[in-house]
Amino acid sequence: MIDYRTPLPDLLFALRHGAGAARLPHWDDETAETVLTHAAAMVDEVIAPLDPVGDIEGTKLVDGRVVMPQPFVDAYRQFAGDGWQGLAVPEEDGGQGLPHILASALSEMLSGACITYQMVLSLAHGAMRTLAASGSEAQRAAWIPRLAAGEVLATMCLTEAQAGSDLGLVRTMASPQADGSWSISGGKIFISGGDQNLTGGQIMHLVLARTPDAPAGVKGLSLFLCPSHLEDGSRNAISVVRLEEKMGMHASPTCQVAFDGARAEIIGAPGEGLARMFTMMNAERLDVAVQGVGLAEVALQRSLAYANERKQGRAGKDGGPDFIAKHGDVRRMLLAQMALAMGCRAMVMRTLVDLELGDRPALMELMTPVAKAFATEAAMEAADHAIQVHGGYGFLREYRVEQILRDGRITRIYEGTNGIQAATVAGRVIRLDNGRALTEFKAEVEESMGLASPAFAGALGRALAAWDEASAAMLGRRDIGLTATSYLRLTGLLAFGAAWARLEAKAEHAANPARIRAVAEYVRDWMLPETRHLADLCRNSAELGSLPDGVFAS
Amino acid sequence: MIDYRTPLPDLLFALRHGAGAARLPHWDDETAETVLTHAAAMVDEVIAPLDPVGDIEGTKLVDGRVVMPQPFVDAYRQFAGDGWQGLAVPEEDGGQGLPHILASALSEMLSGACITYQMVLSLAHGAMRTLAASGSEAQRAAWIPRLAAGEVLATMCLTEAQAGSDLGLVRTMASPQADGSWSISGGKIFISGGDQNLTGGQIMHLVLARTPDAPAGVKGLSLFLCPSHLEDGSRNAISVVRLEEKMGMHASPTCQVAFDGARAEIIGAPGEGLARMFTMMNAERLDVAVQGVGLAEVALQRSLAYANERKQGRAGKDGGPDFIAKHGDVRRMLLAQMALAMGCRAMVMRTLVDLELGDRPALMELMTPVAKAFATEAAMEAADHAIQVHGGYGFLREYRVEQILRDGRITRIYEGTNGIQAATVAGRVIRLDNGRALTEFKAEVEESMGLASPAFAGALGRALAAWDEASAAMLGRRDIGLTATSYLRLTGLLAFGAAWARLEAKAEHAANPARIRAVAEYVRDWMLPETRHLADLCRNSAELGSLPDGVFAS
Repeated sequence: MIDYRTPLPDLLFALRHGAGAARLPHWDDETAETVLTHAAAMVDEVIAPLDPVGDIEGTKLVDGRVVMPQPFVDAYRQFAGDGWQGLAVPEEDGGQGLPHILASALSEMLSGACITYQMVLSLAHGAMRTLAASGSEAQRAAWIPRLAAGEVLATMCLTEAQAGSDLGLVRTMASPQADGSWSISGGKIFISGGDQNLTGGQIMHLVLARTPDAPAGVKGLSLFLCPSHLEDGSRNAISVVRLEEKMGMHASPTCQVAFDGARAEIIGAPGEGLARMFTMMNAERLDVAVQGVGLAEVALQRSLAYANERKQGRAGKDGGPDFIAKHGDVRRMLLAQMALAMGCRAMVMRTLVDLELGDRPALMELMTPVAKAFATEAAMEAADHAIQVHGGYGFLREYRVEQILRDGRITRIYEGTNGIQAATVAGRVIRLDNGRALTEFKAEVEESMGLASPAFAGALGRALAAWDEASAAMLGRRDIGLTATSYLRLTGLLAFGAAWARLEAKAEHAANPARIRAVAEYVRDWMLPETRHLADLCRNSAELGSLPDGVFAS
Repeated sequence: MIDYRTPLPDLLFALRHGAGAARLPHWDDETAETVLTHAAAMVDEVIAPLDPVGDIEGTKLVDGRVVMPQPFVDAYRQFAGDGWQGLAVPEEDGGQGLPHILASALSEMLSGACITYQMVLSLAHGAMRTLAASGSEAQRAAWIPRLAAGEVLATMCLTEAQAGSDLGLVRTMASPQADGSWSISGGKIFISGGDQNLTGGQIMHLVLARTPDAPAGVKGLSLFLCPSHLEDGSRNAISVVRLEEKMGMHASPTCQVAFDGARAEIIGAPGEGLARMFTMMNAERLDVAVQGVGLAEVALQRSLAYANERKQGRAGKDGGPDFIAKHGDVRRMLLAQMALAMGCRAMVMRTLVDLELGDRPALMELMTPVAKAFATEAAMEAADHAIQVHGGYGFLREYRVEQILRDGRITRIYEGTNGIQAATVAGRVIRLDNGRALTEFKAEVEESMGLASPAFAGALGRALAAWDEASAAMLGRRDIGLTATSYLRLTGLLAFGAAWARLEAKAEHAANPARIRAVAEYVRDWMLPETRHLADLCRNSAELGSLPDGVFAS
């Protein structure tokens, strides 16, 4: 059984025609194709086989240290040795100096092939960006080359038991030492890759902590670089207290980590913690969107493979059983999966290219939460369809579609639950700078309408009109509890439709033009109409109001 | 942590005011309350603690026999000894002669407390009904009392590797023997409770098999009663070949069973297999709907408990962190869960009461697939919200909400995938007997409108009008591939709204009237409007048409 094969033609099609990667100043189309072709061969051969092993073996805590399945360790050695971690790192820092979007394309492949492997590696990329943006020269020189070479991996230590979505409640303390360093004490939870044995446990922890006499809330937080090992090679005072048992992602070690007077350096100045961390948090939010694309892709692949090998029932009037790919209800699910995987890929990649261009920060404020939420919801919808396409076999572990759902369910939660993303958009982003994000977004949708066929442009125009009404309603609302999620989905669906407009316009350049055209029709006639319903909900004059607490008593 | 507590007041409220149980000829309200109070105490104390054990330990195949966790065996001994399996069995057959609806209420409690326990026991009820309807006098006398006493459990052996949704492909053979018995040979898969050690392995298998020279397809199938043990106490030629590894339901043994010349009796006449089996299949479809209600209820309970103990973020402008039950987005999810659990309970129980009354078979043809699909989708939506309400903790096994999703995911698949239910309704039921099912359904909705408040009746009326348009469109459609599922959901949402109309009308009799009123408003303003969107999809003039197979190539 082929479990995952990098969809190279689809990836290149999305990069060229969906994302408009050629807008990047140093883009070279031929280089991109060569690099991704090599990456695809490596991912399909070396990484994809890890996935079932990781789900069954998981990680273990042995004598206080995390042990991952041995094939992960072996694969990582080859991967790091071949320089893949440094793909988008400047050459002067030991990397290959390629555009970030190619590293994101690799990230998608890894997420489809084995999301736990991707997960353990991915935080290093955000860490490098954080150091590049906020680190001192010495910090950059000391750490970026080692991260690029894969000698070190990174973590992001934010969450504490009492401080999840609400970082203002962080209690971990950092005390200044006589030699200019800091001493960190406190407990962090949900730390992905809090320990691992891929790099021999060499880890750069980025820790959010409170300095003495700092104000309460998020303003009192500072960011620290806390290495797993001190300069003399001894271990810093950091220990893994517990490894969580999870629904999925079994090969990604999720650690409860105790800092017990661990030696650290500050990044930036005291009180700048959250601002410095935002570089990483935004990078991670979009990386979770990329994970969503990878998961939707692999869900689609397994569904197509099964639907073309399983015979059951007759689709027409005569003859024996047909492949279930001939049945209407299965075709509905396959079309939905194709729409979600390909459209989210184009939408997310376009957002990443725009981020790299850096010229529309307001649009990025909107598209980061929108892409994160829409792509992860799409991934879970695609995984759900994959189980349903497989019927009873979908419930069995060996068919490996239920694993996609179990692994991926966390993507709708981490880096800010999708409810938090909705509140961010509906409660804050739409009001920033006189609605600049909305203006830029609308211009982006209109540009894509100009490229599409008249029929597609018409459907997108109706969706845009619905969104306009909804946006006006949301700007006038005080209580967004019941509507924020609908508005986020509406905005996501419109962005997704705009991405599809670009793909439809260039269908002739796709590997399977008939598929692009059929799926674009499905998006146009069966998905975009939901925008009308969502806009009506956003405009709903009914308010939840202040219900008595007794309604919600347990 | 309280994991599950029977919602006795809600159950009684639903029975009295949602289901109209008093319509049953032998209904006694006081008896019902007494029986369910006893049942609730037993379920909360004895059954609910099994659930985490079952998930972790699962079942094992030891020397060819299934071994369940010992606490399940102990609990079953007490349960069967107290006569719970015979609750709705006539007194002359050794049961307690109570209405079936009370056995279904018990089934809901068991499903919420520990669905794997419910699952292993449940097929016995459908088997008793099948014997009562189709068995010979000797078969009824020999088996019903033993099933009622819990000495024997039952299975339903339909599915084979090549014959899932398509039973016409069944290959298992039954050959007549000189002594009038039959000899069964073949392999069956996905057999729930195919072996167990609750009854010492005493099982009555109901097997669908093909007789020699029978016509191809479903017309050639006959139904057989195949006991695990022969009259002399020796084991029949039935063996468990394999135990499936599943996404969830770990304590429910799903077996691959081989019949190797097993001795059996025929039920009814040759060729009547599917007709005879339909009694059981219909009972099981509604029992799966009942499972959905139990799962939605437990998802709600865990969400409410967590939302009232977790503090995070501020709901208002001032002060420290609030319970997350105060936050708008969490309230949205709690309202949705309450709506789903309480509305599906009323809808499913009403269908079961109607089934027991037996006077509207056409309505049952419609409501059986509608209730099965809508309640199981609702259960998974409620479970999904439960994970999201828990944030990162929802992904951890110890909070036991991800287990609801893992266990319950199969309810959308077994007893006919929800896609098959959709095709049944949109492709067949709406056309039967000049649309009699639709006429009866509409009358039922109109009756509930007459009870509701003007505002609720208005919303329900708009939903009914949308459904009318959609029904007309569906009757005119040939290709239902893209619309059947929308039509099924639309019909389900309308039935669910009608059930809520009855609850809203009697809110003052509920344990928490403010909750009933608040949730009814949520249903009215935020859920019922989806009917308009679904009806528009059903009426969509776009057709998928005959797409080239290449679109769906793998």
